[in-house]
Amino acid sequence: MLRRHLVTALACACSVLAFSALAADKAKPTPTAKELLAASKPSEWRRPDPQNLIYMQLPTGRVVIELAPDFTPLHAANIRTLVREHYFDGLAIIRVQDNFVTQWGDPNDDDSGDKSKIRPLGKASKTLPPEYTRSIDPTLQWTPLPDGDVYAPQVGFSEGFPAARDPATRREWLTHCYGAVGVARDIDPNSGSGSSLYAVIGQAPRGLDRNLAIAGRVLQGMPLLSGLSRGAEPMGFYTKAPQRITLGSVQLASDVAEKDRQDIEVLRTDSPTFAALVEGKRNRRDTFYTLPAGKVDLCSISIPVRDAKATATSKP
Amino acid sequence: MLRRHLVTALACACSVLAFSALAADKAKPTPTAKELLAASKPSEWRRPDPQNLIYMQLPTGRVVIELAPDFTPLHAANIRTLVREHYFDGLAIIRVQDNFVTQWGDPNDDDSGDKSKIRPLGKASKTLPPEYTRSIDPTLQWTPLPDGDVYAPQVGFSEGFPAARDPATRREWLTHCYGAVGVARDIDPNSGSGSSLYAVIGQAPRGLDRNLAIAGRVLQGMPLLSGLSRGAEPMGFYTKAPQRITLGSVQLASDVAEKDRQDIEVLRTDSPTFAALVEGKRNRRDTFYTLPAGKVDLCSISIPVRDAKATATSKP
Repeated sequence: MLRRHLVTALACACSVLAFSALAADKAKPTPTAKELLAASKPSEWRRPDPQNLIYMQLPTGRVVIELAPDFTPLHAANIRTLVREHYFDGLAIIRVQDNFVTQWGDPNDDDSGDKSKIRPLGKASKTLPPEYTRSIDPTLQWTPLPDGDVYAPQVGFSEGFPAARDPATRREWLTHCYGAVGVARDIDPNSGSGSSLYAVIGQAPRGLDRNLAIAGRVLQGMPLLSGLSRGAEPMGFYTKAPQRITLGSVQLASDVAEKDRQDIEVLRTDSPTFAALVEGKRNRRDTFYTLPAGKVDLCSISIPVRDAKATATSKP
Repeated sequence: MLRRHLVTALACACSVLAFSALAADKAKPTPTAKELLAASKPSEWRRPDPQNLIYMQLPTGRVVIELAPDFTPLHAANIRTLVREHYFDGLAIIRVQDNFVTQWGDPNDDDSGDKSKIRPLGKASKTLPPEYTRSIDPTLQWTPLPDGDVYAPQVGFSEGFPAARDPATRREWLTHCYGAVGVARDIDPNSGSGSSLYAVIGQAPRGLDRNLAIAGRVLQGMPLLSGLSRGAEPMGFYTKAPQRITLGSVQLASDVAEKDRQDIEVLRTDSPTFAALVEGKRNRRDTFYTLPAGKVDLCSISIPVRDAKATATSKP
């Protein structure tokens, strides 16, 4: 059992969902994530609106992204328009920069691209207002974390997304945690449209917070974006076009026949079970951890996602 | 230039070394990393002791790891012994868990392995004292960071490694930042030997700090460890043995003929140039960033590494 115990324990440090394995065969005071999730109530899980779910097909599988219209409504609407126009179909992952981002869009919309072949955005806007932050809305769900943050006065989860707040300015914004999907732009803050997006694949680049719009979050399929060969060119661009990963169909779940949709459920971040998972990560007591951290940082918390059709759970 | 500006600016948020690109063609008050590094003095760079440098050959290239004998001397010595015995040659990367770690060692030293084929450790110790923390030594170089930390009272760089301190207990320890190389172990804190190691490939799992020994840090080749397909089994194990990545030769630089060594230089974390790079990341002012973060977290700082034989610089 040596290696298994080892990796189990190691794994537990990363995913609340992995808390389970080690404890499965040992009685422990701290309930494991597996136990907590098994005991969770159906009402603690939410089904994202299919209008906010994007299925992005890669050669290796499907990536599921949830848009965040509460924070970036104009970007969500524009991305929906682009998706409905099949704008992304056949475009590509153009860069993978280690410990930073995987970015996709139109390869021709670049210095090295063929400007004459740039794909038109159709009915979608070419530019949008920044939407980097929004005024704090008391009607939005907010679950604060207790351990502070290097970058923001307050951090927690708003409507299920990792977020930060500044009571002084009454502003709230989504944070660049692992799996965040941001809107690439030019120098002009108004130049983003959602036609080129990036997903965070490394240490949270929180310095981007409030400087770029976050359009959503990857719910499933992160390994398909993070486990790619890094581009050899500066900023992770691929040296040769054939190295790019071509996107298959990119659709809104709402445009997919119901029988073909994934029945994805996300644990509510304002649920008792989520609170117990967070506390279990802050103060995990088992035979492996001799010293519980006693703290947890926003971007180290994973939000459980499951396919209601299956019984299995997975993390982004 | 649209896309190039975009990615340049994006890239800059991740690597101090990438600050350069955007500024290259624009006059800006904040000197870029490229400018700062170009102006750095030879005395600001250190050449790691070849006795502390490990060359780990993968099918895709070489990973260079620097051991941290100031923090884990017994582990450094044991790993040197294992390397000199060619213990790691032909072993494998046995798991890649998304947003967590890539781990290598003896595939047979696992539940699914063939116990009869476990590779002996030879003269190396099978177990070692934990070495999770060490008493603060005033003679060790310490460069504190100004912006605080969620997990520790103080964070900064000690002898060139990301580290944390607790003045109350007078203890100091290396932190699980991106690229940290940790010592896998069993439940027993004394069960680690260095025969199985992991590298952090995602959001810093700081909850592991002070619960596992950090033997060193990857100086070059991180993309070769982070850009691998994630294992489909729980905790990132590969489903089939052939999916594992076999290790080629694993050597100490000191055992390699001088002419064949990489002449690696690492920017001193107590140098004025490093301080300027950190400040540039904390308060970057350019046409892209409308709002400088004003802060930086320990694990978001990359330490410049260069091959003195080449003129190019690179980040781990």
